Amino acid sequence: MLEELKRKVWRANRDLVKNGLVLFTWGNVSEIDRESGLVVIKPSGVSYEEMRAEDMVVVTLDGTVAEGDLRPSSDTPAHLELYRTFSRIGGVTHTHSSFATAWAQAGRDIPCYGTTHADYFYGDIPCARVPTEAEIEADYERNTAVAIAEVFRRRNLDPTEVPGVLAKRHGVFAFGQDGAESVYHATVLEEVAKIAALTEALSPHAERAEGYVTDKHYFRKHGKNAYYGQIKRGE
Amino acid sequence: MLEELKRKVWRANRDLVKNGLVLFTWGNVSEIDRESGLVVIKPSGVSYEEMRAEDMVVVTLDGTVAEGDLRPSSDTPAHLELYRTFSRIGGVTHTHSSFATAWAQAGRDIPCYGTTHADYFYGDIPCARVPTEAEIEADYERNTAVAIAEVFRRRNLDPTEVPGVLAKRHGVFAFGQDGAESVYHATVLEEVAKIAALTEALSPHAERAEGYVTDKHYFRKHGKNAYYGQIKRGE
Amino acid sequence: MLEELKRKVWRANRDLVKNGLVLFTWGNVSEIDRESGLVVIKPSGVSYEEMRAEDMVVVTLDGTVAEGDLRPSSDTPAHLELYRTFSRIGGVTHTHSSFATAWAQAGRDIPCYGTTHADYFYGDIPCARVPTEAEIEADYERNTAVAIAEVFRRRNLDPTEVPGVLAKRHGVFAFGQDGAESVYHATVLEEVAKIAALTEALSPHAERAEGYVTDKHYFRKHGKNAYYGQIKRGE
Amino acid sequence: MLEELKRKVWRANRDLVKNGLVLFTWGNVSEIDRESGLVVIKPSGVSYEEMRAEDMVVVTLDGTVAEGDLRPSSDTPAHLELYRTFSRIGGVTHTHSSFATAWAQAGRDIPCYGTTHADYFYGDIPCARVPTEAEIEADYERNTAVAIAEVFRRRNLDPTEVPGVLAKRHGVFAFGQDGAESVYHATVLEEVAKIAALTEALSPHAERAEGYVTDKHYFRKHGKNAYYGQIKRGE
Repeated sequence: MLEELKRKVWRANRDLVKNGLVLFTWGNVSEIDRESGLVVIKPSGVSYEEMRAEDMVVVTLDGTVAEGDLRPSSDTPAHLELYRTFSRIGGVTHTHSSFATAWAQAGRDIPCYGTTHADYFYGDIPCARVPTEAEIEADYERNTAVAIAEVFRRRNLDPTEVPGVLAKRHGVFAFGQDGAESVYHATVLEEVAKIAALTEALSPHAERAEGYVTDKHYFRKHGKNAYYGQIKRGE
Repeated sequence: MLEELKRKVWRANRDLVKNGLVLFTWGNVSEIDRESGLVVIKPSGVSYEEMRAEDMVVVTLDGTVAEGDLRPSSDTPAHLELYRTFSRIGGVTHTHSSFATAWAQAGRDIPCYGTTHADYFYGDIPCARVPTEAEIEADYERNTAVAIAEVFRRRNLDPTEVPGVLAKRHGVFAFGQDGAESVYHATVLEEVAKIAALTEALSPHAERAEGYVTDKHYFRKHGKNAYYGQIKRGE
Repeated sequence: MLEELKRKVWRANRDLVKNGLVLFTWGNVSEIDRESGLVVIKPSGVSYEEMRAEDMVVVTLDGTVAEGDLRPSSDTPAHLELYRTFSRIGGVTHTHSSFATAWAQAGRDIPCYGTTHADYFYGDIPCARVPTEAEIEADYERNTAVAIAEVFRRRNLDPTEVPGVLAKRHGVFAFGQDGAESVYHATVLEEVAKIAALTEALSPHAERAEGYVTDKHYFRKHGKNAYYGQIKRGE
Repeated sequence: MLEELKRKVWRANRDLVKNGLVLFTWGNVSEIDRESGLVVIKPSGVSYEEMRAEDMVVVTLDGTVAEGDLRPSSDTPAHLELYRTFSRIGGVTHTHSSFATAWAQAGRDIPCYGTTHADYFYGDIPCARVPTEAEIEADYERNTAVAIAEVFRRRNLDPTEVPGVLAKRHGVFAFGQDGAESVYHATVLEEVAKIAALTEALSPHAERAEGYVTDKHYFRKHGKNAYYGQIKRGE
């Protein structure tokens, strides 16, 4: 079942290591097949070196294991909630990459200080609140994603335009059209988090980039007038 | 004697290099065989590349060399004191990894700022006091461990729940069920030390993670209701 | 056409990766053949691993593609403006390397704090202003270079003596006699940016290096009395 | 002539790269044969990858090239002055490694914050003054070493006990019994410089390690009562 997708998800999980985003088993990638509503995700606590494509676990959107001998990542309920809430995303990455996690631990949004950020994220990268004690008792992992959905709704953000978010005290969730793109965005987010931290060290009262600059950068790569890369998006 | 254990300890010492925890010969790992009371430890001042499994030194809990042509690590008396005091640990790692050593040099506990920390360490990672001048004259290495035992006793900490500690001005000691797990915990401690330092740079008055969040994280991985990984701990 | 030059530019672009200056496709190198006025540049959005020497795109100084199946880097108009303005440069590198980009995001010149800087850059490394909203609407990439040219003109700087500049909120442009030397200078600039940031962390009111020291360093490597390396420049 | 020594010096220069101390050609190692008074040193501006053992240059203590087709490092007069002044050193390394250079650019001694430092350097690592304008005009490289000798003399330091020093605005000079040991000490100095910088970031008013602690660490590795490593020094 979904052999091709398992292979893609397996490869995307290995890219977490290649891109320097994880230590030990501290991250996971999933991808959804929107037609069948099935999600493929990394098994829990298995090392990236040892895991095989066939070890990827298939779960339904309500969390039932549809296929797989191993238990899915303990963060699975968060992934599923994100897929249920954000109907246009196809992949989710969760990591504890160092700089992004520092922003999450500090409980701060990452301000858009420049064009590197603006090329991929439209505006600040939000930091979602900590789930309440009641939410944690009831269903911790799912409610981590509920808090994320809340910050997107309140600020009227679109997860295809802001393809990543910090979970306060915790780490990163990044989105994409598929698992691989969510890893790509998690990698960008880590670099952006690093450069933003260095920016503040050099200039404690650094100003955000001008709106007309960040608009230019975001829209030269995205939307119908994009002109970056080999394919004219608007064509 | 203890050939299998020597091989394990040799491999754990090499993991110090692989995991980026040591420069030159600046670290050592030991493991105890609780049945015989024998401890296997790295020889002193030998490079990780050159040393062979058979070079590991076997010592008794009172510090007598039971087997081995080489002299054991000069930190051996500290390892032995830790085994004598903490009867439930099976492995000890000592390193001078960069970020953890910076916290030790600053003489500060590492505050629990988030879930990455809470997944492995229950509460702040303590910084043990510097041995007194008299303690240093009498038996420096052993008394480094005496100061560590003291901070665990005074704060009522359990080395299986807080599997690592800073020695003020000095470096790290980490614990585990065996040598390999103590290296694992030393690696986590270094990453946690890094993220905590970055967190303070971004937010000088950062707050500790909420107790109910860190409890949730610690206990989803540890104890009888744990549900992380492939084995249900409580089963 | 220009096969040898394509190969040089291809190799210089790959050096961006080798020297740790780029993530994904975030950088590009070009070189000009001053005789023909043709510029060879990296194609847009193509990964460094996959691109081949024959994929390099040839453009005229007014921006017409003279040869190549792929679209040239979206930053091409900036490169061309730099070649038109600075008649003595032969190569241009554009990157978003971490430390240099942090200085650019902070909107700050990099002060000349020492001899490492002075060996390659004569005086502070300037930070060019952000293009105005009108400039961005009219021709963003070209006007990024117009702002760079402006800061060189206003401060009376020579791009052969100050072979690199920050574009505020954005990143780095570095120059050289050819593409390879522009990558070399971009690499130096990143290291200088890193050491300068660390210097300020250690000493918030650090002073610039004495003029007679930096003159000595710059001129022992450059100009007719240089005596560094195997070729006596003044001979 | 001195083929064995050339090979040693060649290897020590390559260790600069392996140990992460240099970018491009930014460092050099020499070693002296005290019997003949001949010094072997890296050629100027030659890359570490391309240079061969036979490219090493032999110079006399007064700076005459005794053998070699290439010009010696432009820093040679500094090396020679150090050998003339410090009769008990056998090797010298000069680098611009990042953290150490930041301390040099800040014009600060590296305080002895802990045992990692104390294991190799007895007391603070001094920062020598910038040569005066007259000294630079007269003989820059030699007078860099004159300023180093001055700080050792004024503070009554022994280069075998403090085997490294910062040259203000510039970089590092490290010493050893031979070239290889001077590279070893330059590597330790860079790590100590890094940890000290991190220590100050965590605790702006960090205190130096207690004298009785640093004495203990220094003398357990050095002098007649040393007990670190496989050879009892005092035997």
